[in-house]
Amino acid sequence: MAEQGKQKKLVEAITSMEQDFAQWYTDVVKKAELVEYTSVKGCLVIRPYGYAIWEHMQRIMDEMFKATGHENVYMPLFIPESLLEKEKDHVEGFAPEVAWVTHGGQEALEERLCIRPTSETLFCEHYAHIIQSWRDLPKLYNQWVSVVRWEKTTRPFLRTREFLWQEGHTIHASAEEAMEETRRMLEIYVRFFEESLAIPVVTGPKTESDKFAGAVTTLALEAMMHDGKALQTGTSHYFGDGFAKAFGIQYTGKDNQLAYPFQTSWGTTTRMIGALIMTHGDDSGLVLPPAVAPIQVIVVPVAMQKPGVLEAAQALTERLQAFCRARMDASANSPGWKFAQHEMKGVPLRLELGPRDLEAQHCVLVRRDTGEKTIVDLHALEETIPQLLQSIRDTLYQRALENQKRHTYRCNSLEEIKRELAEKGDGFVYAMWCGEEACEDGVKEATGIGSRCIPFAQEQISGTCVCCGKTAKHMVCWANAY
Amino acid sequence: MAEQGKQKKLVEAITSMEQDFAQWYTDVVKKAELVEYTSVKGCLVIRPYGYAIWEHMQRIMDEMFKATGHENVYMPLFIPESLLEKEKDHVEGFAPEVAWVTHGGQEALEERLCIRPTSETLFCEHYAHIIQSWRDLPKLYNQWVSVVRWEKTTRPFLRTREFLWQEGHTIHASAEEAMEETRRMLEIYVRFFEESLAIPVVTGPKTESDKFAGAVTTLALEAMMHDGKALQTGTSHYFGDGFAKAFGIQYTGKDNQLAYPFQTSWGTTTRMIGALIMTHGDDSGLVLPPAVAPIQVIVVPVAMQKPGVLEAAQALTERLQAFCRARMDASANSPGWKFAQHEMKGVPLRLELGPRDLEAQHCVLVRRDTGEKTIVDLHALEETIPQLLQSIRDTLYQRALENQKRHTYRCNSLEEIKRELAEKGDGFVYAMWCGEEACEDGVKEATGIGSRCIPFAQEQISGTCVCCGKTAKHMVCWANAY
Repeated sequence: MAEQGKQKKLVEAITSMEQDFAQWYTDVVKKAELVEYTSVKGCLVIRPYGYAIWEHMQRIMDEMFKATGHENVYMPLFIPESLLEKEKDHVEGFAPEVAWVTHGGQEALEERLCIRPTSETLFCEHYAHIIQSWRDLPKLYNQWVSVVRWEKTTRPFLRTREFLWQEGHTIHASAEEAMEETRRMLEIYVRFFEESLAIPVVTGPKTESDKFAGAVTTLALEAMMHDGKALQTGTSHYFGDGFAKAFGIQYTGKDNQLAYPFQTSWGTTTRMIGALIMTHGDDSGLVLPPAVAPIQVIVVPVAMQKPGVLEAAQALTERLQAFCRARMDASANSPGWKFAQHEMKGVPLRLELGPRDLEAQHCVLVRRDTGEKTIVDLHALEETIPQLLQSIRDTLYQRALENQKRHTYRCNSLEEIKRELAEKGDGFVYAMWCGEEACEDGVKEATGIGSRCIPFAQEQISGTCVCCGKTAKHMVCWANAY
Repeated sequence: MAEQGKQKKLVEAITSMEQDFAQWYTDVVKKAELVEYTSVKGCLVIRPYGYAIWEHMQRIMDEMFKATGHENVYMPLFIPESLLEKEKDHVEGFAPEVAWVTHGGQEALEERLCIRPTSETLFCEHYAHIIQSWRDLPKLYNQWVSVVRWEKTTRPFLRTREFLWQEGHTIHASAEEAMEETRRMLEIYVRFFEESLAIPVVTGPKTESDKFAGAVTTLALEAMMHDGKALQTGTSHYFGDGFAKAFGIQYTGKDNQLAYPFQTSWGTTTRMIGALIMTHGDDSGLVLPPAVAPIQVIVVPVAMQKPGVLEAAQALTERLQAFCRARMDASANSPGWKFAQHEMKGVPLRLELGPRDLEAQHCVLVRRDTGEKTIVDLHALEETIPQLLQSIRDTLYQRALENQKRHTYRCNSLEEIKRELAEKGDGFVYAMWCGEEACEDGVKEATGIGSRCIPFAQEQISGTCVCCGKTAKHMVCWANAY
């Protein structure tokens, strides 16, 4: 009875998005078996299915990083308090939210160590050791690690006290080269988001008040979730020579003069899994873009007790594995239960194969994104499946782009912003800004939404700031955000 | 002048192994640019070249794990003190050497959190959440993470306060299945060591006193370093149902009865890089087995200012990249300087290409392991290079095996042990043991060497314990160890 109850629970409907988006999200991360809670608040177990998504993200991005000359390294987990304090803005930004190690074994440490919330200070200490000459530049480094930030409120993938990420850190002889790197890495992120995650993004610099602690410029990727809220999904920072000066990193130039080099850092995190869920998911659960789906095609044998069905499905699965990530579900569960479970897990394609299909030498392919069923000749699968997977990526991307467009409001006044949000719900508000922090705060106070970035794709919506009416400098993308 | 001085330093001879093995080791890890020290004792930067070796190790092992049904997960960094304390032996073994987090942001934590020294307790907490029925078993998990153990004395790769590793954790319905897993993973490690690292190992259970904290049985891999000392390079533990009972993990069996499952864990670490250095290295630096070498073939153009040389070397490098990890060194340094540097870095093959070679349509291939030079037809490289790489692996393995055999002493008495060690230097001592801890301590006291494992390949050296003279139960492998 308990067993049956448990089986039933797995196909039980999750909360609908319309009814309660936050609860829907929590249901999906649990029922798709992405994470499990632990006894430490904000620290989660990433389960095999969730971790496999991350591994696919890692593999694709790591290839892009290496193809552009970056090398992976590993920096220590610990930052001595005195090292964290070397760059003034940086310590102000991070010290309030770090975890402190005070004891090693039975002994109190002479100096507290924080667990890295980000590793600029560690890279700087290392650069100071290894960089002497212009010949040592540039260094293009990256690492895949976890970091810790002691957040007060937490949500799976979106905001956790420990999270996995990659952090790129580079150092260059000239400001131009470092700025170019900052932009190049943003472009790599954009390409990854669009091609692999099927998520359109708005990109541009953050305003002064919203920059990374210690950065001269922070470029950000902002994605729109299904509910119209913004999610910052990646950042690329240009540091100028501020860190180099704080950490005493100098090199001898070709002119035999000592000079300070210029730095960047850039990062993306397991938050991208949250972005996938909230961009593509639906009331049946997760919907995964094929590039990062742990299983791209789930083969479900129908009437599998009939002679030959299971063997044929097994042989077919092995054939598919030559060109896609296919798996067979030969468990004792009913086909209907399997359909629901693999929908919950967001598997892009389901292949159904029964005795009658075998006789006719075809099978049924069902798309997770549209639910569309196609009967396909068994001999045509090498051609059809890659096409369908590409089409699923394209459909997901188009849908997300349409959602973004539908919920992007161009506004000329605070009143208009409030009206649009009230009528159409959350979204990206494009409105002009004079560049003053007071007006950034003013918009937030009046409308509740904050600046996300100053999009590279500027539009001249009007000539004046929506807040003070003075001459506008930029069009800002404003939104409620996760 | 400073520039020239620096170039010179790179080709300066390192300390010879004979003169000072410990200093030789330190020189190699620094000059081959594997690691760099930081301001936190025992926490090192793993530099790109060192990390690339680790990435190749990871890739090969991860494939082996996945091919045997294991899935990767991610468990949190933190273990609450109360969770660490649940299994008595385990906490006794690890509590004295963990790092404690006491503050998050500005606030003192209600309960201290230790940074994982190993993750059995975290996996157990998770199993208790997700395992209810026999259908949920087995779970075959692994994770690639860093762990922290607050060691007093530290050495790069061999003993560091933070190190990288993989820890496999599995849970099974029966003791037999768990024991089988324990052995299977040891076998996978042996295969990896022999095939990919070219390192022969002695394997067998640890004695009772030397087991992992909380294990019923610990199987170990012991490798012999160039200086005759032992290095434990991997372990595979069988836990019985001890952890399950301590953590209240139960499942409903097919018979509808509640039962405790059985667990294993197994791990290998960045210490394997230390094993590579001390097994294959020589007075010119690192010698890397091809399977994990970041660069397998370094192409050095000779007289590269001559027309056509650089272009030909570039084209050749690209051709080689289709079947091996090839790179060209077109830097402004002299060929001799380049030869020395790539020898220091242990690149298995060097390919020299000059104007006269081009004319004759051949090149010179130089093996790092033997120094042997071969003139090879440019058209034969697709055939010759893979053969040479395989031959380098075989030669390294044979040499290491011969070193191990030459320094394995079969002894019948404590006197004989002392004499052999005094005459022939450190090595593996095979000698009989009665099974009593007092005699294990006795051997250590009398000869200075400790038990490494009870080799699976038992030999009947004599019938009596070398220490007490009573009937012997096992032949033990004893040695000085890192």
